[in-house]
Formats: sequence, structure tokens, C-alpha cells
Amino acid sequence: MKAKPVSKTRSAKKSPAAAARAAKSSRKAPTPAADRRTWAFGDGKADGKGDMKEILGGKGAGLAEMSRLGLPVPPGFTIATTVCKRFWDDGGKLPDDLWPEVEAQLARVEKALGRKFGSGPRPLLVSVRSGAASSMPGMMDTVLNVGLNDATRESLAAETGNRRFALDSHRRLIHMFARVVEEMNVREFDQALDTAKRNRGTTSDAGLTVEDLVDLVAIFREIFQARAGCPFPDDPREQLRRCVMAVFRSWNGDRAKKYRDIHKITGLLGTAVNVQAMVFGNMGDSSATGVCFTRDPETGANVFYGEFLPNAQGEDVVAGIRTPLPIAQLKKTMPKPYADLVRVKELLERHYGDVQDMEFTIQQGKLWMLQTRNGKRSPQAVLRTVVDMVDEKRITKEQAILRVDPAVIDILLHPTFDRGGSTHVLAKGLPASPGAASGRVVFDAETAEAWKKDGRKVILVRAETSPEDIGGMNAAQGILTSRGGRTSHAAVVARGMGRTCVVGCSAITIDEHAKEMFVAGSTVREGDWISIDGSTGEVMLGQVATTEAKLSKYFTRVMAMADEFRTAGVRANAETPLDARVAREFGAEGIGLCRTEHMFFDERRIVAVREMILAEDTAGRKAALAKLLPFQQKDFEEIFGAMDGLPVTVRLLDPPLHEFVPNTEKAQAEVAASLGVDADRVRRRVQQLHEMNPMMGHRGCRLGISYPEIYEMQVRAIALAVVALRKRRKDPRPEIMIPLVGHVNELRPLADMTRRVMDEVLGAAKVSVPYTVGTMIEVPRAALTADQIAAEAQFFSFGTNDLTQMTFGFSRDDVNSFLPDYLEQKVLPDDPFQSLDTEGVGQLITLAIERGRSVRKDLKVGICGEHGGDPRSVEFCCRAGMNYVSCSPYRVPVARLAAAQAAIRAAQRAHAAK
Amino acid sequence: MKAKPVSKTRSAKKSPAAAARAAKSSRKAPTPAADRRTWAFGDGKADGKGDMKEILGGKGAGLAEMSRLGLPVPPGFTIATTVCKRFWDDGGKLPDDLWPEVEAQLARVEKALGRKFGSGPRPLLVSVRSGAASSMPGMMDTVLNVGLNDATRESLAAETGNRRFALDSHRRLIHMFARVVEEMNVREFDQALDTAKRNRGTTSDAGLTVEDLVDLVAIFREIFQARAGCPFPDDPREQLRRCVMAVFRSWNGDRAKKYRDIHKITGLLGTAVNVQAMVFGNMGDSSATGVCFTRDPETGANVFYGEFLPNAQGEDVVAGIRTPLPIAQLKKTMPKPYADLVRVKELLERHYGDVQDMEFTIQQGKLWMLQTRNGKRSPQAVLRTVVDMVDEKRITKEQAILRVDPAVIDILLHPTFDRGGSTHVLAKGLPASPGAASGRVVFDAETAEAWKKDGRKVILVRAETSPEDIGGMNAAQGILTSRGGRTSHAAVVARGMGRTCVVGCSAITIDEHAKEMFVAGSTVREGDWISIDGSTGEVMLGQVATTEAKLSKYFTRVMAMADEFRTAGVRANAETPLDARVAREFGAEGIGLCRTEHMFFDERRIVAVREMILAEDTAGRKAALAKLLPFQQKDFEEIFGAMDGLPVTVRLLDPPLHEFVPNTEKAQAEVAASLGVDADRVRRRVQQLHEMNPMMGHRGCRLGISYPEIYEMQVRAIALAVVALRKRRKDPRPEIMIPLVGHVNELRPLADMTRRVMDEVLGAAKVSVPYTVGTMIEVPRAALTADQIAAEAQFFSFGTNDLTQMTFGFSRDDVNSFLPDYLEQKVLPDDPFQSLDTEGVGQLITLAIERGRSVRKDLKVGICGEHGGDPRSVEFCCRAGMNYVSCSPYRVPVARLAAAQAAIRAAQRAHAAK
Repeated sequence: MKAKPVSKTRSAKKSPAAAARAAKSSRKAPTPAADRRTWAFGDGKADGKGDMKEILGGKGAGLAEMSRLGLPVPPGFTIATTVCKRFWDDGGKLPDDLWPEVEAQLARVEKALGRKFGSGPRPLLVSVRSGAASSMPGMMDTVLNVGLNDATRESLAAETGNRRFALDSHRRLIHMFARVVEEMNVREFDQALDTAKRNRGTTSDAGLTVEDLVDLVAIFREIFQARAGCPFPDDPREQLRRCVMAVFRSWNGDRAKKYRDIHKITGLLGTAVNVQAMVFGNMGDSSATGVCFTRDPETGANVFYGEFLPNAQGEDVVAGIRTPLPIAQLKKTMPKPYADLVRVKELLERHYGDVQDMEFTIQQGKLWMLQTRNGKRSPQAVLRTVVDMVDEKRITKEQAILRVDPAVIDILLHPTFDRGGSTHVLAKGLPASPGAASGRVVFDAETAEAWKKDGRKVILVRAETSPEDIGGMNAAQGILTSRGGRTSHAAVVARGMGRTCVVGCSAITIDEHAKEMFVAGSTVREGDWISIDGSTGEVMLGQVATTEAKLSKYFTRVMAMADEFRTAGVRANAETPLDARVAREFGAEGIGLCRTEHMFFDERRIVAVREMILAEDTAGRKAALAKLLPFQQKDFEEIFGAMDGLPVTVRLLDPPLHEFVPNTEKAQAEVAASLGVDADRVRRRVQQLHEMNPMMGHRGCRLGISYPEIYEMQVRAIALAVVALRKRRKDPRPEIMIPLVGHVNELRPLADMTRRVMDEVLGAAKVSVPYTVGTMIEVPRAALTADQIAAEAQFFSFGTNDLTQMTFGFSRDDVNSFLPDYLEQKVLPDDPFQSLDTEGVGQLITLAIERGRSVRKDLKVGICGEHGGDPRSVEFCCRAGMNYVSCSPYRVPVARLAAAQAAIRAAQRAHAAK
Repeated sequence: MKAKPVSKTRSAKKSPAAAARAAKSSRKAPTPAADRRTWAFGDGKADGKGDMKEILGGKGAGLAEMSRLGLPVPPGFTIATTVCKRFWDDGGKLPDDLWPEVEAQLARVEKALGRKFGSGPRPLLVSVRSGAASSMPGMMDTVLNVGLNDATRESLAAETGNRRFALDSHRRLIHMFARVVEEMNVREFDQALDTAKRNRGTTSDAGLTVEDLVDLVAIFREIFQARAGCPFPDDPREQLRRCVMAVFRSWNGDRAKKYRDIHKITGLLGTAVNVQAMVFGNMGDSSATGVCFTRDPETGANVFYGEFLPNAQGEDVVAGIRTPLPIAQLKKTMPKPYADLVRVKELLERHYGDVQDMEFTIQQGKLWMLQTRNGKRSPQAVLRTVVDMVDEKRITKEQAILRVDPAVIDILLHPTFDRGGSTHVLAKGLPASPGAASGRVVFDAETAEAWKKDGRKVILVRAETSPEDIGGMNAAQGILTSRGGRTSHAAVVARGMGRTCVVGCSAITIDEHAKEMFVAGSTVREGDWISIDGSTGEVMLGQVATTEAKLSKYFTRVMAMADEFRTAGVRANAETPLDARVAREFGAEGIGLCRTEHMFFDERRIVAVREMILAEDTAGRKAALAKLLPFQQKDFEEIFGAMDGLPVTVRLLDPPLHEFVPNTEKAQAEVAASLGVDADRVRRRVQQLHEMNPMMGHRGCRLGISYPEIYEMQVRAIALAVVALRKRRKDPRPEIMIPLVGHVNELRPLADMTRRVMDEVLGAAKVSVPYTVGTMIEVPRAALTADQIAAEAQFFSFGTNDLTQMTFGFSRDDVNSFLPDYLEQKVLPDDPFQSLDTEGVGQLITLAIERGRSVRKDLKVGICGEHGGDPRSVEFCCRAGMNYVSCSPYRVPVARLAAAQAAIRAAQRAHAAK
């Protein structure tokens, strides 16, 4: 099996993405590498390599790479992801040609170790683990001790002189096989274990006697048979075969599919299966098993971080059943393997150039490496590690920037709790994923999902979490568990999702049935508010106020690095001086969308606004508008002042007028009284303004065409504000934007009016300030006729909210009546209002930019829809050639990073194309 | 002036359209032809030609062509339309270089006639008339007798020995000059004339004595000076100059602009001015003036048709002030000029190959031709004349088809009155424009327009109409005048507009002030209903029921000819068996859109529909749908039966569910009672279904995705109907259409379901019927991703109503809040819901067809929006390569003709491109 044809080597050199593409594009004619079903590793060599995740899965690739690095890896082999694909293509059966290869691989491992699988005095036991290209909770994880039956167990007992260990391994196999292969509810097994311990008067597994374990194995067999309807399989090959099939089946299990949905994982072939010779962490006190990180995954500090359990098997750590010890203690109890582990972690981090998350087992003093992968980190840790690694010259700045998921920046900008003296801390657990979350307590994932759908914020409280809880964890503001450590399922998953998480909070007792938890003498019931702090581990009663995120020096460093590469500008959507200041602090280089309508809602202004709306003629409207003019001027002075020296794109009035008048008869009567007009007139006008589909109604530039005096007042206010600021030696840079244009004839008269009024006011004041007049592109027709529109517009700003609405024909206000169905049935990959539909809406954007610049080379182009803060959409905008993106102030850093990544990728593409 | 440079000749050869394009595209560098300011005619030769309407205007081109044909045309010259453009470009002044040319032209005319303009014993008098490329009421029309003052009048009196004639001509000049040049209200002039006649005890102008006329001229001078503030200009050159300027000014007068708006006349340079030596129809009893058609413009019969007034000037005929005599009488009173006229009309019709509308004057027995142009005809006459002329081999079938404006077909399909015994005919006038119109009486154009806006039908009743009334005539269902003949302003304009019109109904007396009319002892007040029959001239009290149009054999012939050329199919939008039968009779070749929702509103079905909507789960919905299934099956059996052998495109349910449940609490309570459910549940469900923007809400295929059982029931009903019909040996041809698709993922599952259910039902019944599954393209995203969608769809049907809504972002329900402003300010050339926006929406259509056919060569493409019956839109659809258009049954003939014209033009373009 070791002879590798040349073509396989060639394929192996491809990047995983390229391999994926190749695998995808040639399903009928697989590449030779994809043809190979099993890949050996161990013994300082391997068939595969670390960059073959697509075929070997992450775990298999890591094992191959560690083998090649000469690290102590128990020998084994990986069944490729392509076999999983064939398994499903064939309707759920193993390919006929697989098993002979498996047998050959087993024979190689037997030979290497001088053991026999399923027989002989030195029986070979193996572990079976799933492993896709992306880490994916929800699939079958691990079955250990495969190969044990009464005969091999006794051989093992004899060989090791440790019958207790052999029995312990045996009962674990049955338990694990029942749980992960047969997907049984294992409560009866647990109860039997608990009963045995109670009977023996012990609280630890280690307190059980050999006799207890003999009984337990028998009891476990009985439970298994009762539930499965057939005996536990004693044939090692049948055990292995069923494990392999269970791994493949779990690939399309509900939980795995849900996980892929939530994490948008697509395009994978399937999962690999890793079959590896067992090493034993449960072979007495000189044995242990553990999980460790090359750096602290929560703070990012360059300190060795991890946990271990002496005399245990790996599942005990991950499942959070026993609370593990910090890795530092290993140094004291097992100095030699500890020193080996430190050498290994140094080597691996340097080799991969990234923080590693490793699993290891120490068997009677010897270290074995079972897994390595890039470590998931808290957002803070992500930033700190990339900055440190740049400083340590382990990675380049480009690598550092590309390594930071923009989502982590978003999380970092989340608020933290504002602690007054009155906060009642109920308990303290382990801080597992930072952030501050308040919500109503729920005790199961289904309720979490249901309540979230109803718009309620929830905190999911569980003894421990399991892959079934994924949906509920995603729906929750935060997760609180009473058991498990910082590498438990709850902690790992929550960090990945960016959910606040506190684990191992043993002070709380949960009654899932009664839907209550007891803590410090209080009872907290389903629906009660609690708050959890993922950075301190504190659990508080009630809702707790929050303060803004304090940003670390690492954040500042990362942002500065990003700005070194970024080519597109980043602006903010802001309409108050406060927003403008926040945006500026976050690095906004201007305002991309300053809405003017909020200014109309102020109490003192709304009267004049309504007077204007109720006016019978132009003269009446002008009189009312004259009252608004000084207010608007002041608004603009403030915002231009706050953004002194930076451009501010002011959008003229956009919403339909009926938004400014009340709907109820009572409120209408009040308006009538305040304006001194007849109530009937108000009512009639409101009726007249009513629209069937206001989104496509009398708004935007359509108001400007019907009532030019409104826009004229607004432009005059802008001009007067500019004059006032210039007199104060300020540097206002207005860009005036006409909304909802669909035809150049709409824009032309309004742009002409704008220039006329600006020039008139500036000219009269002898002030010269450059300003521009442009338009939003938010109606499909505007995109289609962008060449005509660009003749009149100096800039385009894509209003992708409306453009998405009209391109899809989806009303954003009503889309929730069917969008959940669409996402569930995968009609759409994403909510197009969150992540830009590059295929449809994106076509219009690309086309509009192209046509616009065909007539105006220096056309400035930006985006001001919600998508301006969505990293994937930002990437698209940059590729489409936009000059800037604009988003809410708190997303400015996200956009800066996303834009930098886009620029780096563009440079890489350009380099590759050379 | 007669030497023509080669370049002018070349330009003159261009088609008018080409000349227009040339003139348009080279404003800075006009063509040499456009450089020439004045164009001579008369004496059997002319500088210009008949195809130079763009430069010479229609009237000038006709005069030039008649001159070239050697017909008796009084000499004169045309000031080109390019001069009008320069007049307006220069801010309303005559170009400096114009007058020397005018003087040279005058000198030529003087020489030709041996007369002097403004002096001498044989004074030259001229007429000044406007004349744009398109006939355009509303511009200054004619000033006769220009050149008269006291001196020239007396010379004329001496020369003709007819002082009465000279004085009559003089008072006419002042009157006309006041009216058309100075735009004075001429009531005082008319009153003075009436007073003079009353004093003299006569009712006719001819009854006035020379002394009376001397007085009248003096009185007219006084009135003129009093109203104008300056004396009447006695300098002939000043008269001429002011006339020319008045013509140019009238080009941009409100009425002319309104006329161009209504008739969508754009792209013209301006109006020409025709200055022509006077000939006199008022020179005694051997003189006359008249208007005639080569064929009857109302029936189309090949009989000489016209009217004349002896001893009168042309304005008397056109203005309808005196009621003229039928042309046949001219044969008796003036046989020689009549014979000449008959020869001229024969020659002209043959020369132009079209019915001619001519103006002539007989001066002391000699015939002079003053104008010829293609005659406007009633819709019936249009059809009859083209059919006759094809039969007479005067024109080709292609020419015949292209000559019929599809709008006339539309008019012909209008209903006529259904006369029971009870109809009360009040009076009878002259039938001037066919049709049957009922409406409320209004007595002025403003009221007509205002009431029309409010949705009321009106009949405009006037003593006579004038260009000021254009807007009101357009707004009215029909026009009734008490004076004037069938060539009066009212008759000509009404025919052009396709408005029913009765003129010269002298039995009615109108009191405009009191807003009443008196007829046959009754008083009819503003707002009362009357009905007029434009084919009989009858005026009836009240609303009269109508019957469908009876279509003449000419209609049938024209349609048959059209079908010879037509390449695109024509289908109808129909959803009842009645509609389907009508459509079939009108030549529909299938149903392009069969909506299925109306079937849900039937009283017995709506209960089940509501039960379905209120169902709590899929099972409940399915139970309710099972009740609907037999109804839907019957619907489909009927419609497939009516369209036996022809394709029927069935659109699955489209509207949002809230359309089927009532809005008021009371009605909701009733629904609850009828379904035996809680009223609150109904109310809550209605609330839940409420949408902000239902147009972009939960409808179309979105329902199909959320509630697949609804579409499944509909498809099953289609399949069962097909089976039932096949058992009756019928030939059903269903095409199943999924609406509102924007993403191929929406279409795919629904198309799969459709095919599955169809095959299942047909298979079980062992019936084999070809059917297709396709989609509407009505969401911009569908057009943009048409290649993907065509992979699943066997046909596309463009739903241009929704596509227009979403491409513009205009809600059709709300567009009237701003569309009137848009049309008035020319932001948009047309209502895009009536005439397809080829520039924006059309782009999406073209692109979708191209992309769709790129993956499915035989993709069938049609249109089923309202635009399918709009001739200009049909032309676009044919050019875009659609297989068929579909429209309402009554527009099917219009679409057939428009499609034939499109095919002929396409063939002509293809021929020209060779």
C-alpha cells in the first residue's frame, strides 16, 4: 500500500480547495487520489499529508502530518471522505472494494505492533473516529477499544497483568458502542454504573473492584441486548464494520446537517473514518489523557494551556463528565511525558504557524499524539495570537489578517455588563466564551428555538450540552452549564458560534423535568431573567445593563494592520452627532448615509412637518417648510461639524409622507387641534396618503418631483450649514444624494435644483466649497440604466436593502411569512437581506458600476445598505470595484477588516494570475 | 433660389424619419437642406418635395408636391421648420438672416403674378398658415388677406370692381389677426358683426351693405386698438412679420403642447410657415371654398366626399360657423371647377396611394388647390379604404396592414347601443365619429377633465369646439356640438382621438353660463346622463345599454391579411369559458394566462378556501383542499373544453391568502360562524396574514413552497380534467405555470411536484397527453438568472405588470399619487403600465430571453401582462423574439394586427440590411 503512483502525489499537492474543486467538477471521473480508499499513517510516515483535509478529513490529515513529522502517533489508517460519498451515492452501503483494503491496513498495523486484531495473546484494539474536512460536532465522534470481546479482554488482562483495566475498557466499549453506534439513550448504562458505585460505597470509577466490573460488563450486555433486540457483537470485525458505517451514517444525521446549515458548510464530500491502534490513558496512574492548546484559547496569551485526566480515556475529558486538572499539574505528576508534550506542541505550532489544539494520551509514561488541529479561540485570543505571532515572525501580516474571521470583531464590539453595586451574583462558573448575555432561562433546546422565533431572548441552561442542543445554542444569547470544563462541548461550540458561555457552574442544580434550577437558596424558573458574563463566569439574576466593549491593544494593532492593506474606504451610516463621533472613533472615513427623516420626528419639528403635509398648496407647504429650515440647518451643522474634513453623504427625504401623520382617529384629532384645522381634513389627508404598498409608493425622489419645495428646503439647509461652518473655519464636505431614482429624468431636475440652490447660497456668502450630487441605486431600473444616470450623478450609493427587495420582489417587512420556509428548505442559502445575493442583486450592482463608469470614469461608488457591514458582502463590494462601503458605526471595524481581507485576496489572485 | 446644390437634393431624398434623425443628430452641424430657410412653390415647380414634411411641414410638403404635379397652386413659399427651431433656440426672435430671403421670395411671387405686396394698383395679398410635420390643431392656423390696409383695399376694390369684397376681406383680416395673431377674445368682433346684421335686418354676411362693411372695418379697428393697446398694423410687412412670429410662438403654446402630449408627438423641429398668394372664395357667387376627401372618411366608401361654401373664405368651413353644402351640389352650381376638382382628386389619390383630404378655393370659376394630405378617417373607413385599395391594386397588402393604426381596431371593438323600444331620442345631429357613448353632460373642457379624473364618464357638449377644448375632448366619452359640419374642428379631432362625436345638432340650445341645454322642450343640466350615437347622430337622454361591436367584412379581410404576415402567435388572457369562447372568435390561438384564483371566490368554494386558510396544520389544509378539488377539476374541464386543441396556460394560485378572508370584524364573525370556529381565531389569522406590502409578500410560488398541498391540489385538478376530457375524445393542451419565481430553487421543487402529480394521475388513467411546465418571469431576479430558470422551465411567460412594478419600484395600486406629476413634467414619456418601458423593463426581457434560450433552445416565450394588448409593446415583444403575446379577449385583434405590422417591419429591416 505504500507505493504511491505519481498521479496520486500530484493530486496530493493540490490545495484542499483545489482538490475540492477537482473532486466536485469530476464526479464521474474521480482523480486518482480520490480513488484511493484507505490512507496509512504512523511509524514516522504516512500516505497522506496535512493539506489533504478534503480527502482525509481534518483529523486524518493531522495524524498523517504528525506521522511525517516523526511524532509518536499510534499507527492506523484513514478511510477517505470519497468512500463516504460512495456510501451515500450507493444508498447507504459500504463499497464492496473497501473491506479488502481495510484488512490489508489492519494487517500492516498488526505487523507494525506485533499484535493481532481480534485474537492471539497480544490483541490489537483500535479506536474509530469520524473526521470531516471541517470540524463538525453532531457526527459520531469516537468509539474506543474496538476489538474487545471476552477472549481478547482476557488476553489483554493477561498481557498487561491488569484485569481491572481490561474490564474497564470492555464496559467502556459496550457503553460507547451503544451510545454512538446504536444511538441508544444511555441513561440505563449510567444508572447501572452509578448503582455499582453506590453499592461499592465509592464515588469514582476507580473505586470499583474487578468483580464489580465483571458484573457491569454482564449488565451492560443485558441492557444492550434488551434495547437493541440482539446481542452485543463480539466479532471484532463486525464491531469495526458497524462503527465505520455509523460514522458514515452520522454524516447525514439531523444534527450534523443542522450544524452544516448553521455554519454554512457546503461542498464537502463526506466524513473520513480514522481507525487507529488504541493507546490507553486508563492503564493506571502513570497513564492519562488530555487536551491542550499551544496558547491560551481564551486570552490568547502565549502560555501552554490544557487539561488532563489521569487514568482515564479521552471521552472523559471531552464529554465533561469528570472535571479535569490543569495541564500544569502534569508537569509535577509526569515530568517526562510533560516535557515531551511541550516539545511536541512547540514543534506543531511552528510547523503549522497557528495555535494548535491537540489530543494526547499517556500510556504508562509514554506520550502518544492522537490529534492536532488549528485551535478555536475566543475573539480576544484570535486577535492576540495573530498579533503575537506576527511579532514573533511566525506569520506574515497578510496571514494574520486573513486568519481573523470578521465575525470575531463583531463579537468583540458586543457590550459588556455595566456593573452597579446592585448586581446580585448568584454563582460563578468557568468563563468559556466571552461576552455579556441576558435572557430568559430555558432548559431545553427546543424551547430555546421556539422562544427565539417569538422574538424572546433566552439563556440555555443545561447540565451539559450535546450535539442535539446545537440549534438551541444557536438560538440562545448565552449558554450556562453546571458541568464540564472549558474544552467541553458547550464551551467549544459556544466559542465557535460567538455565544456567551459559562460552564462547570457546579453551584447550580437543574431539574429539567420541573423546569427549575436551584442556586444559592433561590429557585429560578423557566422564563425568569438571568445574565451571564462569559469573561468572568458570573451568573446573575435578572437583566443587567451593559456598557460598550473596551477594545484591547490587540484590536487596535489588528485594525492598523488591516488598514495597511485595505484599498476600499469604510464609512458609517449615521445621522446624529453621537453616531458620527462613535463612527469616527471606530475608524469611519466619512458618512455614507445620513438619513434626514429622523430629523423630522423631533417634537418641535413634527408640527411644522404635519403643517406642510396638510397644506393645501405650494405656498402653504413653503410656509411650513420655512419653519423647518433652521432646524435642518442646525442638524447639518452638527453632523458636518462632527465629521469635519470627512465626506458626509446626505440623503434627501425618503419615506412616504404618511409616516409623519398618525393613524388613529384620536391622534388625528390631536394633530388637527394642534394645527388649528378641522379634524376631518386631517382624516381625509391621511386617507389620501394611505398606500397599498408603501415600499413602492410615493417616496424618495418621487416626493421631490411632486413637492420640489421639500428638497429645496433641505438643500438650502445644507448650503446654509456649510456656509456657517466655513465661517467657523471648519471643513464641511457635503455629498447630496437623491434617493429612489429609477429614471434619469427623475434625477436631472432634482440635481439641477440642488446645484442651483447650493451655488446660489454659497455664491451669496462668497464661500467656495466643493460638493457633489449623486444618487442611490436601489431600484432595478436605475441599475439597468446606470449609464444614463451617471451622466447626471457624480456618485452612486447602492441601497441594497431596497435593491434586494425589488430584485426579489420581497417586502422586507413581510418576508418572515415565508423566509423561514425558504431557509429550511434551502430554497435560498441565506437571508438575502443579511448577506448580499451576489448572483442576482450582485449582477445588477456589477452591471451598474460598469455602465456608470463607462460614461463617468471617476464615478464614486459605495454601498449604504445593511450589507455594508456583512463581511461576505463587503468582499463582493470590493471585488465589484466600489470605492467604499458604509455600515452602522459598530460594524465599521468589521468592514475595515473584511475590506482588508478582500484587498489581500485580490492581490493574491493578481499574483497567481501572473 | 431655384438652383439647388447637389447636397440639398441628396438630403431631400431621405425619408422624413431619416431626415429627422439627421436633423436631430447634427444640431451643431445642420445638413445643407436644413440650412435653407425658405422653399418656393407654385408655377408647376417647387424647391421641395412631398417627402420633406420634416422640413416643410405637412402643408408645405403637400403644396410643393402639388406644384410639381402641375396642379393649380397659388405661388408662395414655405419657411422651414428649422427656422422655428432657431426662433426658439434664440429665445423667441426671428433669425436675422431670414427676412432678406422672405423679401426675395415675395419678389418672386410678385413677379410671377405681376402684383406688388403692399402697394400698387394690383396689390398682392397673402395667406399665412402654420404647418408642422404632423397635423396639429392648437397651433395658429391661418391668417388670410395679409397685406391689406386702406390703400391696398381700395386698389383691390378698384381692380376687382368689387368694393364689397375688398371691404369684407379687410374686416376678416382684422378679425382673424386679432384672434390668431393677438389671441384676443373675439366676442366683441362677433357681437359687432351680429349687431350690424341685426341693424341691417339680415342673418347672413352677404346681407350687409358696403356702408355696413365700411363701418365694421372702422369698428373692428377700434375694438382692436382698445384691446391691443395699439392700432392695427397697416404696414403689410409688419402684418406678415407678426403672423410669422405668431405661428412660431404657437408651436409652444399650451394647446399645441397639450396636443403633442396627448398624441405622443415628439422629436419634431417645429412648425413651418406657409406664405402663399391669396385666392378668393369670397369674390362673389362664382367663387367658393371647400374641403373634400377622395373617399368618404366616415364609411370609407369610394365616393367623392366634401363640403363647400359659396362666396366664402376657408375659415368659414373649418370653423363650422356657417353650415356648408355637400360637394355634390358643386357639380350643379360650378360644373367646370367641379370637373377639375374631380380630376385633381383622382390624380392625388393615385399619386399618394392614400385617401386625400384637400382644401380648395374657386375664384371666379377657377380652381385653386390650397392643401392636400392623407385624410383622417373613421375606424371603419380606415379598414374599408385599405381593403378597397388593395383590391384596386393601388397599394400592397403590406402597405395596407402598416397603414391601419391598431388603435382603430380597438375602437371598432367598442360596443354600440342596444336599442330597446324605450330609447328616447332627443335630437339628431350629424354623425361625425362612430361609436356609442354615454356620460354625464358637461359644458366646458375643464369640467370634463376634472370629472374624468374623478372617474366619471362625461359627454362634452359645446356649441362648437376649438383647440382650447382638446383636453376636455380627450377626457370625454363623446362630444356633441350644436353647430358645424362633419369637417369641423370637433369632428376631425374626435375622429383622430377615436371619440364618439355628433356635430351640428341644431335642435339643441346651449346656455354655457347656466350649464344647461334645452332640447325638444326638456332641460338637460350639467351632470345629467345622455348618450350619443356617433354612427347615426342620435342624441338620447339617459344611459343606454350597449351591444358588442358587429365586425364588418372589411375587419375580417384586414385581420386575414394581417395573419398572412404575422409570425408571432396571439393568445388571450381568459379564465371563464365565456371569455375563452370570445377569445377564440377573435382569433386567439390559445390562452396565455388562465388565472385560477377567481375560481376560489365562488360562493360555494370560498367556505372551503377559508377553511383551508384557517387550518392549523397540513392535514387540516388537505381536508379543505379535497373539497375544492372537484370544483377546480370542473373549472379546468370547461376551459380546456372551450379551447379544445389549443394550448391553455394555467397559472397556479397567485394572490396572497389574505385576499380570501374578510377585513371587517363583522364579516370575520360570520366566517367564524359558517366554519364553526372561534371568531378570535379568524381575527388572529387575518391579523397574522396582514402584510405591509402585499405585492411583495407571501404570494405566488411562495405559497407553493409554504403550502405545497395547495398547488398539488390544483395540479391534480388539471390532471383529472385532462383525463376526463380525453375520455370524451377531446384534445386538452395544458401548460402549467408557476408564478412569481425569482430563484430556480423555487421553481425546481414545484415543477418536480407538478410533473410527479401529472404523471401519476395520467399514468393511472393510462392517458398520454403532452403537457409543459413553465414559469412567469415577473421578478427582476428571474430575468437576471433566466439561464438557471430555463433549465427547469419549458416556457417563460413575462408578467410585465409585476415586472414593471418591481423594475421601477412602482406599486401599481399607488402609482397615481405621483404618476400624473411624472407624465405632466415629462419625467416619463408614458404610463409604463400601459406601454412597456422598453428601455428598462425591456432590457430585462431581452436579457431573459437570450439567457433562457442559451440553455434551452426551444424555450417557448410569451407575454401575459396588460402590455400584450398594447400595439407598441407588441412590436417590442415581437422584436425581442417572443413566440406569442397574450392579452384580454377584446384586444386580440389589435394584437394580431400589431404583430403583423411588427413582422412586416422586421422583413423590411431585413431586406434593407441586405
